[in-house]
Amino acid sequence: MGRVFNFSAGPATLPEPVLEIAQNELLDFKGTGMSVMEISHRSAAFTEVIEKAEADLRTLMNIPDNYKVLFLQGGASSQFAMVPLNLFSSKKKADYINTGQWSKKAIAEAKRYGEINVVASSDDKVFNYIPDITKDMFDPDADYVHITTNNTIYGTVYPELPDTGNVPLAADMSSNILGQVYDVSKFGVIYAGAQKNVGPAGMAIVIIREDLLGSALEITPTMFNYEIHADAGSRFNTPPCFAIYMAGKVFEWLLDLGGVSAIEEINREKASWLYDFLDNSKIFNSTVTGSCRSIMNVPFVLPDDEMNAKFIKEAAEVGLQTLKGHRTVGGMRASIYNAMPPEGVKKLVEFMQKFELENS
Amino acid sequence: MGRVFNFSAGPATLPEPVLEIAQNELLDFKGTGMSVMEISHRSAAFTEVIEKAEADLRTLMNIPDNYKVLFLQGGASSQFAMVPLNLFSSKKKADYINTGQWSKKAIAEAKRYGEINVVASSDDKVFNYIPDITKDMFDPDADYVHITTNNTIYGTVYPELPDTGNVPLAADMSSNILGQVYDVSKFGVIYAGAQKNVGPAGMAIVIIREDLLGSALEITPTMFNYEIHADAGSRFNTPPCFAIYMAGKVFEWLLDLGGVSAIEEINREKASWLYDFLDNSKIFNSTVTGSCRSIMNVPFVLPDDEMNAKFIKEAAEVGLQTLKGHRTVGGMRASIYNAMPPEGVKKLVEFMQKFELENS
Repeated sequence: MGRVFNFSAGPATLPEPVLEIAQNELLDFKGTGMSVMEISHRSAAFTEVIEKAEADLRTLMNIPDNYKVLFLQGGASSQFAMVPLNLFSSKKKADYINTGQWSKKAIAEAKRYGEINVVASSDDKVFNYIPDITKDMFDPDADYVHITTNNTIYGTVYPELPDTGNVPLAADMSSNILGQVYDVSKFGVIYAGAQKNVGPAGMAIVIIREDLLGSALEITPTMFNYEIHADAGSRFNTPPCFAIYMAGKVFEWLLDLGGVSAIEEINREKASWLYDFLDNSKIFNSTVTGSCRSIMNVPFVLPDDEMNAKFIKEAAEVGLQTLKGHRTVGGMRASIYNAMPPEGVKKLVEFMQKFELENS
Repeated sequence: MGRVFNFSAGPATLPEPVLEIAQNELLDFKGTGMSVMEISHRSAAFTEVIEKAEADLRTLMNIPDNYKVLFLQGGASSQFAMVPLNLFSSKKKADYINTGQWSKKAIAEAKRYGEINVVASSDDKVFNYIPDITKDMFDPDADYVHITTNNTIYGTVYPELPDTGNVPLAADMSSNILGQVYDVSKFGVIYAGAQKNVGPAGMAIVIIREDLLGSALEITPTMFNYEIHADAGSRFNTPPCFAIYMAGKVFEWLLDLGGVSAIEEINREKASWLYDFLDNSKIFNSTVTGSCRSIMNVPFVLPDDEMNAKFIKEAAEVGLQTLKGHRTVGGMRASIYNAMPPEGVKKLVEFMQKFELENS
């Protein structure tokens, strides 16, 4: 079949122009006579790739000079340990907000190394909202506060960042990095697995304020020490070269589109088409309401499992793929990251309209 | 320029037929309408990819059923910590053999977690040999013995495996896995970064005997715990999908060629052309002698740095690329992994003959 619209939560759809560039130069990268997968990570050609990727990411996110940018392996799951191992002082205590399965995993891993205080949670309602947070909820003596900015499974996003005062804010931004504008200077550390909004799986981005480097706990494996990677420009060992190359191409594509504020506007429009339809439908329902609706992941349900299954099957038949929701929420989920073209969302909404007509 | 012969030590040349398959299906993997980079790691399509890759690797290396095969992130450098963190008992002691820079890094990392005894070393002669090892050199009470089977920088390989008795043998096989036949049952754990003889950078293979799982030290990050990945079939979190896909294609290519014993024969022949020439040359010299010469990495030198530089420059001009040796050895190094076609080595030897004629 031709290319489909792929609503997968991750690994997720990539910009077609990026895939086309990668395809064209897969056997001969910029006249080297080698694939970008075959060149040394210390070569001039790859040095240009990784330095350009970092520079473009800095431009896209307006990353201040006192932040390091790292391209690492191990996904966000490794970050669940790296954040406490690197950010804990001798106090070893941190505040976490629990807004879903990934927050829970981050909390469980951090608890293995220190004292974790869960200051707020939305688990009473299957994580379909972001708890109200006030500054007085935080321990001013904590080493950091951890949040998950966008919750892939539940389709929620923080309407605004919590005010943590002088305590560094650590954020898992895996599912909305580059999808909307954030002020990096508000964070101590941002991390994100690449496979949702950045590139192929196998890479994580870490953006960390320099003053937080250099005091990893003794037990930290060398490869889990941010400072080691910062000092080596993400080439302490062989990095995930192809994933970095692909991410760099995505960054270029995004710059050409006008950057993060431009894509955020497109993303908000894409999401509004879905939410507007859901809010007016007689059979489809959004599982999230209000200001914490994600513009990246939109879960929705039909009245029963049989209809959900019918919808998913019929959507797939017309090239609207991977719409099954996470088992904890059920129903459907449309992940509409940066690389999902507006036409994909339009086609989905049209199909939902048609489905509603035929099934009500 | 057209495709060159790339003698890089890693990331290294890949089989051209594998790159061509990847190129052809980069935007549409097996009629899914998606790139293999865009499909969920939990999808049926990717499940087939990872399961086939594992099955083919098991066939190629004749891996016994009581060994687990893991596809992980973080390279061999992460394994330097994972081996002690997972294999140490309460004794926390291990024997290491130091045969080069990578052994040294493995030793340094393990020392952070326990008592490491370096039982033999070849650092007195810039690691240009493998020390003689006898069983009585090992502590029968050690948790494991660690070796580096093939030393990429120095061009050495163990002519035979040390007899460690009942103590599990742990091996960094990054630069000769699948390049020559090993009896996996002689090892407790084998690990290898992919970027030399397996596929693109961003993946490590771990082959571990099941009885060594399940007793990781308390401080081990979840992502560094072999058991976690073994129980999850290497999909505890999102794996490096594209690297696994590429490795799987390399495994298929190798099976088509007749497997590891067949490629070992080819590799021995390729290497013999180089060594025979070096041993008879008046100006080129091999830096390694005897039975510990690697069939994967062949370092060699000319009488002075000026001639080395001239050779590297002129070789590159005729499409013989990335021949510069490691700074600790100097001169040249031809990495002639599985994917280096015999014609590449032939062309290199012919060029060396020509260079000798013109420069002596």
